[in-house]
Amino acid sequence: MSILAAAVAVGLGAIGAGVGNGLIIGRTVEGIARQPELQGKLQTTMFIGVGIVEVVPIIAVVIGFLAYFS
Amino acid sequence: MSILAAAVAVGLGAIGAGVGNGLIIGRTVEGIARQPELQGKLQTTMFIGVGIVEVVPIIAVVIGFLAYFS
Amino acid sequence: MSILAAAVAVGLGAIGAGVGNGLIIGRTVEGIARQPELQGKLQTTMFIGVGIVEVVPIIAVVIGFLAYFS
Amino acid sequence: MSILAAAVAVGLGAIGAGVGNGLIIGRTVEGIARQPELQGKLQTTMFIGVGIVEVVPIIAVVIGFLAYFS
Amino acid sequence: MSILAAAVAVGLGAIGAGVGNGLIIGRTVEGIARQPELQGKLQTTMFIGVGIVEVVPIIAVVIGFLAYFS
Amino acid sequence: MSILAAAVAVGLGAIGAGVGNGLIIGRTVEGIARQPELQGKLQTTMFIGVGIVEVVPIIAVVIGFLAYFS
Amino acid sequence: MSILAAAVAVGLGAIGAGVGNGLIIGRTVEGIARQPELQGKLQTTMFIGVGIVEVVPIIAVVIGFLAYFS
Amino acid sequence: MSILAAAVAVGLGAIGAGVGNGLIIGRTVEGIARQPELQGKLQTTMFIGVGIVEVVPIIAVVIGFLAYFS
Amino acid sequence: MSILAAAVAVGLGAIGAGVGNGLIIGRTVEGIARQPELQGKLQTTMFIGVGIVEVVPIIAVVIGFLAYFS
Amino acid sequence: MSILAAAVAVGLGAIGAGVGNGLIIGRTVEGIARQPELQGKLQTTMFIGVGIVEVVPIIAVVIGFLAYFS
Amino acid sequence: MSILAAAVAVGLGAIGAGVGNGLIIGRTVEGIARQPELQGKLQTTMFIGVGIVEVVPIIAVVIGFLAYFS
Amino acid sequence: MSILAAAVAVGLGAIGAGVGNGLIIGRTVEGIARQPELQGKLQTTMFIGVGIVEVVPIIAVVIGFLAYFS
Amino acid sequence: MSILAAAVAVGLGAIGAGVGNGLIIGRTVEGIARQPELQGKLQTTMFIGVGIVEVVPIIAVVIGFLAYFS
Amino acid sequence: MSILAAAVAVGLGAIGAGVGNGLIIGRTVEGIARQPELQGKLQTTMFIGVGIVEVVPIIAVVIGFLAYFS
Repeated sequence: MSILAAAVAVGLGAIGAGVGNGLIIGRTVEGIARQPELQGKLQTTMFIGVGIVEVVPIIAVVIGFLAYFS
Repeated sequence: MSILAAAVAVGLGAIGAGVGNGLIIGRTVEGIARQPELQGKLQTTMFIGVGIVEVVPIIAVVIGFLAYFS
Repeated sequence: MSILAAAVAVGLGAIGAGVGNGLIIGRTVEGIARQPELQGKLQTTMFIGVGIVEVVPIIAVVIGFLAYFS
Repeated sequence: MSILAAAVAVGLGAIGAGVGNGLIIGRTVEGIARQPELQGKLQTTMFIGVGIVEVVPIIAVVIGFLAYFS
Repeated sequence: MSILAAAVAVGLGAIGAGVGNGLIIGRTVEGIARQPELQGKLQTTMFIGVGIVEVVPIIAVVIGFLAYFS
Repeated sequence: MSILAAAVAVGLGAIGAGVGNGLIIGRTVEGIARQPELQGKLQTTMFIGVGIVEVVPIIAVVIGFLAYFS
Repeated sequence: MSILAAAVAVGLGAIGAGVGNGLIIGRTVEGIARQPELQGKLQTTMFIGVGIVEVVPIIAVVIGFLAYFS
Repeated sequence: MSILAAAVAVGLGAIGAGVGNGLIIGRTVEGIARQPELQGKLQTTMFIGVGIVEVVPIIAVVIGFLAYFS
Repeated sequence: MSILAAAVAVGLGAIGAGVGNGLIIGRTVEGIARQPELQGKLQTTMFIGVGIVEVVPIIAVVIGFLAYFS
Repeated sequence: MSILAAAVAVGLGAIGAGVGNGLIIGRTVEGIARQPELQGKLQTTMFIGVGIVEVVPIIAVVIGFLAYFS
Repeated sequence: MSILAAAVAVGLGAIGAGVGNGLIIGRTVEGIARQPELQGKLQTTMFIGVGIVEVVPIIAVVIGFLAYFS
Repeated sequence: MSILAAAVAVGLGAIGAGVGNGLIIGRTVEGIARQPELQGKLQTTMFIGVGIVEVVPIIAVVIGFLAYFS
Repeated sequence: MSILAAAVAVGLGAIGAGVGNGLIIGRTVEGIARQPELQGKLQTTMFIGVGIVEVVPIIAVVIGFLAYFS
Repeated sequence: MSILAAAVAVGLGAIGAGVGNGLIIGRTVEGIARQPELQGKLQTTMFIGVGIVEVVPIIAVVIGFLAYFS
């Protein structure tokens, strides 16, 4: 049962991270294509956002490894 | 059963955090691309919003760790 | 069973809070990007709305902790 | 079983309250951004609407606590 | 089983009431933002609509309490 | 089992009534905001429509009470 | 089991009737708001349509009552 | 089991009939609101379409009654 | 089990027929409202399309009756 | 079990055929309403497409009958 | 169990083939309605695409028949 | 169980191949209808894309046959 | 159980690969149809993207074969 | 059970990676088609984004292999 729990945690976390990062980075690319002189500012905001989005999935990964080695 | 509960809590929390943060940060990037002189104001609002959105998923993470170590 | 109940309560509450706050704060950021002189008014309304949205998820978190320690 | 019932009641109520309040407050913020001189009128209507939307989720919370302490 | 029934009734009722009221009040706020001199008329129609929408969820709440105390 | 049946009947009926009434009344409010001199005509049609929509959910409520007292 | 069948029949019928009538009456209200002199014609068509849509849900209600009293 | 089968048949048939008729009649009302002189032609096509859509749900109703009385 | 099979076959067939016919006939009504002189051509195509769409649901009905009488 | 298999095969096939044919024929009707002089060409393509779409549902029907008579 | 497997394979294959072919052929009809002189080119591409889309559903049909006769 | 596995693998693969190929080929047809002189280039890209999309469903088919003959 | 696991892994991987590749290649075809002189650049980016998207489904295929031969 | 867990982890990870990468790369291709002189900047941002998105699915793959060899 614990291996299935690890799979569920990491799988749902992957979906959440994929959707969240896809929305942020896709719009960043769109913004750079319009105004390339803002690349620095947009990427700064993008990295902050990506870091925030990745918090909970990374913890899901940690939970998954803990569930695996338990 | 408690490990599966930890996985469910963290996984659903990751989806909620991903969708909520993706909506906020994506629109912030879009707003900066339009009016780069407002970067400070928009990021301030973004950080407040991200902090508010992260409250419940972080607690879900806490519940998950509690469920794991119990 | 009580730990799974805690996970379900906090997880669904995280999704509800993420969607609701994401809608409100995303539109607030969009509004500030259009008219930066209204930042105060919009953020005031945003904080009121976020406070209202967070009521039920916070109670879900309380229910979750109660279910955990019972 | 009663704790799971409490979790289900509060979790579904949180989703309902989040979606309903998010629709109302998001449009209110949008309206204020367009016409800031109407802030009072719009917020009055918003508070009425939020109060109405919160009725059933609050009762769901009550049901949840009743189910918890039973 | 009866407590779970109460939770299901109130939870589904909360979702129905949230979606219905959110649609009505959100459009009312939008209408007031366009034509503020119609606030009275629009709110009158809004209250009638909200009252109609709340009928079945309120009964769901009643069913929920009946199921709880049975 | 009969109490769960009551909860299912009233809960699904609440969703149906909420969606149906929300569509009708929301468009009525939108129509009044455009042409306020047609308030009477639009509300007449709205009441007829709401009455028609409420028929089946009200019967669902009746079925719910019957299932409860059986 | 028969009471649950009654609940399922009436609940699904309520959703079907709500969606169908909501589409028809909402567009009728929209049409009257545009051309108020066509109110009679549009309502005539609306009543025909509502009568047609209600046929199967009403029969679902009949099936529900039959399942209840059996 | 046969009563549940009757409920499933009639309930799914009600959803199918509601969606199908709602699409047809709603567009007919929209068409009459644009060109009221075509009311006859549009209603003729509408009745043909409604008759065709109702064929399978009516048979679902028949199956439902057969399942009930068996 | 065979009666439930009949209900499933006819119910899914009703949904398929409702969606398919609703798409075809709704666009036909829309087309006649734009160009009433093409009523014959459009209805001819509509009848052909409706006949083609109805093939599989009618066979589903046949399977349903066969499952009922077996 | 074999009758339920027949119902599943024919029911899913009916949904697939309804959606596929509805998309094709609805656009054909729309195309004829715009350019009636192309009726022959469009119907030719439509018949080819409908024939291709119907291949797999017809085989699903065959599977269904085989499952019924086995 | 093998007959149910045949039904599942053919039913899912029918949905996949219906959606894929409906997208391709519907756009082809739309393209011919705009530029009838390109009928040959568009149909050539359509036939290639339909042939490619049909590969996997046809194999699903083969799997279905193999599962039936095994 | 192995035959059901074959059916699941091939059925899900058919849905994936249908959606993916439908998106690619439909846009190719749309592109040729706009600029017929680019038919060669677009079809080349289309064939590359279709070949890439088909890789995993074809392997799903192989898995299906392996599951069948095992 | 291991064969069903192979089917699930390959089937879900096929859906993921189909959706991801369909989005990328469809937009590439659309871009070439607008600006055919950029075919090289767009295809280069497309191949990189397709290669990245295919990583996880290919591993899913590997997992599937491993599950099959174990 | 551990092989099924591997399949679930890798399959959900493939869906998440496919959707996330598809959003990012598709918009990058669209941006290059508009402004080909920005190819370097856009691809740089794309690679960063793809690398971020791939983190959690790759870990899902690792979890899958661990679950397989355990």
